Amino acid sequence: MADIWTLSEDDLDALAIGAAILGTGGGGNPYIGKLRAKQVLRQGYQMKVMPFEGLREHDVVISVGGIGAPIVGIEKFERGDECYRAVRAVEHFVKTRATALVASEIGGSNAIEPLIAAAYAGVPVVDADGMGRAFPEIQMCTYLIYGLRGTPAALADEKGNIVVISDTHDAYWLEKLARTGAVDMGATAGFAMAPMTGSEVMATAIPGTLSLALRLGRSVQSAKRSRISPVEQVLEVTGANRLFEGKIVDVSRRIVKGFARGSVTIEGVSAFADSQLVINIQNENLIAYKDGQVVATVPDLIIILDSDTGEAITTEVLRYGFHVTVIGLLAPRQLCTPVALQVVGPRAFGYDVQYQPLASGGWYEAH
Amino acid sequence: MADIWTLSEDDLDALAIGAAILGTGGGGNPYIGKLRAKQVLRQGYQMKVMPFEGLREHDVVISVGGIGAPIVGIEKFERGDECYRAVRAVEHFVKTRATALVASEIGGSNAIEPLIAAAYAGVPVVDADGMGRAFPEIQMCTYLIYGLRGTPAALADEKGNIVVISDTHDAYWLEKLARTGAVDMGATAGFAMAPMTGSEVMATAIPGTLSLALRLGRSVQSAKRSRISPVEQVLEVTGANRLFEGKIVDVSRRIVKGFARGSVTIEGVSAFADSQLVINIQNENLIAYKDGQVVATVPDLIIILDSDTGEAITTEVLRYGFHVTVIGLLAPRQLCTPVALQVVGPRAFGYDVQYQPLASGGWYEAH
Repeated sequence: MADIWTLSEDDLDALAIGAAILGTGGGGNPYIGKLRAKQVLRQGYQMKVMPFEGLREHDVVISVGGIGAPIVGIEKFERGDECYRAVRAVEHFVKTRATALVASEIGGSNAIEPLIAAAYAGVPVVDADGMGRAFPEIQMCTYLIYGLRGTPAALADEKGNIVVISDTHDAYWLEKLARTGAVDMGATAGFAMAPMTGSEVMATAIPGTLSLALRLGRSVQSAKRSRISPVEQVLEVTGANRLFEGKIVDVSRRIVKGFARGSVTIEGVSAFADSQLVINIQNENLIAYKDGQVVATVPDLIIILDSDTGEAITTEVLRYGFHVTVIGLLAPRQLCTPVALQVVGPRAFGYDVQYQPLASGGWYEAH
Repeated sequence: MADIWTLSEDDLDALAIGAAILGTGGGGNPYIGKLRAKQVLRQGYQMKVMPFEGLREHDVVISVGGIGAPIVGIEKFERGDECYRAVRAVEHFVKTRATALVASEIGGSNAIEPLIAAAYAGVPVVDADGMGRAFPEIQMCTYLIYGLRGTPAALADEKGNIVVISDTHDAYWLEKLARTGAVDMGATAGFAMAPMTGSEVMATAIPGTLSLALRLGRSVQSAKRSRISPVEQVLEVTGANRLFEGKIVDVSRRIVKGFARGSVTIEGVSAFADSQLVINIQNENLIAYKDGQVVATVPDLIIILDSDTGEAITTEVLRYGFHVTVIGLLAPRQLCTPVALQVVGPRAFGYDVQYQPLASGGWYEAH
């Protein structure tokens, strides 16, 4: 049985890099999340990670993360304990204390938010998440896809507001009600869902994604130190496909009903000269068209990397002139069942396209 | 990328032992299945296994196995190519050839049937299955639980009869229609389902279970050779719980609507003296009561081992006087999601009991 381990400030640097890559543009700005997390460590709190295999049947696990449009997160700073207070609100409602927290999504700062909340609560975070990436909506996490109830759930903002959604018709209504609440709160909030048993997490979560993000970040760092191309390193470590390489020539992005929506257009260079790639966005990168043809869709990960640093460029910082490499990574298998594709496949996002899995290696399985 | 490998007669001996254990009483008599498989090898056919990671998006994979009451399988011998002809019937209907076969269930002789069919067809069997054990009904395999269609499906018997079920309302209707057909055919038949793509198998199957059964069987063999207690060896290798030890004092078993139904009563010895264990059966062991209290239920594996040899005693050979050790093994996580529990949990079998996972190690994950 692997033991609980503790994160250092250096780990947070690596985690932020890896989580940004897995975030496929969303999940919240990992740089700002990292700075806040380091501050929490300096205050003397500890960030502990529990291996997935360490879960026990009767553990009480609350999934938590930020909810909102990522672009707002860099303008409206958090108080820092929003997720923690959302967790406490759920605990208060169900009259049980969590023995561990878990990420709702491992992408972007939402890999880090549960660590901050757990540090305050004095419990570990389970090495797992409910997406293996980031997605824009709540019903898109595997906990709910595979049948667990999200309610009672709680929203908390930086102003001290707390909303408990005690019961909903289904996961789509939970998304709808929580989204409206988050918009009211200024488009970002901490969000925690109903406690799960250890067995329920074991049955529905995507295991090992926190340590996976950490390893991915470390490999980018080590590539930089040894002057290997970090982009090549990411491709090699993940087995992802290189979908495109070029320069961003257009970004359209606006906030619609609490989401960042828009698209980015990239003009090809080198092997991709004379081609154009367009990526459509709802917080995360959803679908990529190369010269009008679909080359990748959700749930597979479409990731925009800075061609020089190998780090991901998140939705809120995309802008004209960046030199980028777009890579595609096969989604974890829990997102690829027909049951899951109804919730996270291209049609769930309004694209009349059949999901065609990328022919890349099974990174999620191999680690 | 691991390569395709070939099974020897020795492998079949080990596989039969391991598959019988995972069969939790059902899946067809593995001894008879093994003898038939050895004969096929001696005729010069090859049995090849493809690693799960070797699947490619566009592979065409047909799941196949025997359907019927296990007790009939030892009285009414098969012609030997029932499963192969069921596969051919599906292929004919959809006008595509399978590039690989896969087991519908890894328990009992149904671990071996796909190997025989694949040997005749000249294709490999994927190292995976749809149950990680055996279950009595068709809708209980993960391919269907997670949303794939089973139709068109085909039944074939030893008399040359073939029935294609081209479309059904849902998986329950497929079970109902296939069961009636199998009963008509004399209570056992070969059964193949609609082709799946490699991606669909990757998304819905339980990986690595064929090699897992093989390793489990080998460890029992090696324990016997080195005079370690084979039961202790099984417990150690799988991380299963010892639920009970004793002598079978009663077996009630009859064929009802194509299933072997009944119960077995065991009187405790040593640490379990003065206690009694009752196991209810529908082809497989479903639920175990110790002195009237539920101690294990589906989907967890309730396995009756011969206390001396460590080999499983299957439903059709249970009888008064056997000294047995009953062990319980946590089910693979794909069977434990709420979505899956609706189909394979205790309530799906008519027991008004909440599923309480066994607190054993995650054997399926660790291998």
